[in-house]
Amino acid sequence: MKIYYSSSSPYVRKCMVVAWELGLADRIQKLPAAANPVNRDKNIVAVNPLGKVPTFVSDSGQAIYDSRVICEYLNDYGQGSIFSKNPTSRWLSLTEQALADGILDAALLARYETTMRPEEFQYAPWKQGQLEKINSGLDYFEGVAADRKGTVDIGTITLGCALGYLDFRFSDLNWRSTRPSLAKWFTGFSERDSMKETMPK
Amino acid sequence: MKIYYSSSSPYVRKCMVVAWELGLADRIQKLPAAANPVNRDKNIVAVNPLGKVPTFVSDSGQAIYDSRVICEYLNDYGQGSIFSKNPTSRWLSLTEQALADGILDAALLARYETTMRPEEFQYAPWKQGQLEKINSGLDYFEGVAADRKGTVDIGTITLGCALGYLDFRFSDLNWRSTRPSLAKWFTGFSERDSMKETMPK
Repeated sequence: MKIYYSSSSPYVRKCMVVAWELGLADRIQKLPAAANPVNRDKNIVAVNPLGKVPTFVSDSGQAIYDSRVICEYLNDYGQGSIFSKNPTSRWLSLTEQALADGILDAALLARYETTMRPEEFQYAPWKQGQLEKINSGLDYFEGVAADRKGTVDIGTITLGCALGYLDFRFSDLNWRSTRPSLAKWFTGFSERDSMKETMPK
Repeated sequence: MKIYYSSSSPYVRKCMVVAWELGLADRIQKLPAAANPVNRDKNIVAVNPLGKVPTFVSDSGQAIYDSRVICEYLNDYGQGSIFSKNPTSRWLSLTEQALADGILDAALLARYETTMRPEEFQYAPWKQGQLEKINSGLDYFEGVAADRKGTVDIGTITLGCALGYLDFRFSDLNWRSTRPSLAKWFTGFSERDSMKETMPK
């Protein structure tokens, strides 16, 4: 198994956290990638026309992406329980994955606004709209964080990677200041080996 | 069942095509929405902090999003076969969904570049990067289109909605000119009632 990899991508981290939780991390070969939304990595494009990381290649040579599909594939491969089969918890955890992915999508767009275009082309209301999504999403998780203690599923793993990315790239957001319950949850979750082994660099 | 709805959103269309294919469309109440990435719809934000369409609410009041999760929920509810349980076809169709969603994400970002920011803040290389993703993705589907004839799964449904969106918003892209096989596939797929009933407006 191979994965096109960047140590700073929160979506790659999500896949690698799942791999660590399932005991599969050392089975996956990491292929370095230099993907960004303006200059695409030609090696990745050959496998995934979107040219994005993570892109995964199975032992049989099948290309699998994006992070949601890779995580579910790894869970099936490792016969894990990170994707619940119980309907009630399945729809909740998949929706929480979508929300945490949405926080990440917004965070990446907010970051690209300043890193991918010269200053004169940066438009503050666009970035502001993205930051509002991040903050509304975090407020939701503040309300449920206490109930998620001890839960390791695709929802909480994605949340952990989203919060890790905010600490890595948006430290001035101070998301903890109004969200003590979420901050406490993240402190606990960050102690998992899967999270320690995948810290963004 | 309810769905926050916009007749121009390709992600809403995806959910409604799935609903039509499963015979569930008339069971879903459509709630009009005015969502955009800069000015968010407060009614949606109360249910989905991202404030995006589609957002779905089940009969028991559970909020379910985004389009991938809604489609899978509807498929389970209707005991359909739009999500394959066979591993080989499952990972292929989920990856093709991710690719067609990626084409749509790129198309929406390219469109937002001109509709969501004044002209002086528009940056051509950003839009160009998005158009490259669209074109690479379409080239992939040109290569497999003949093999997808007769297949109605989450991959082909998402592809149909992506091509419909390109015709709706990017008619000057002329995607058919270099992709005769894909054009032929789309002509056939567009004849399905589910596609006719959900044309973007």
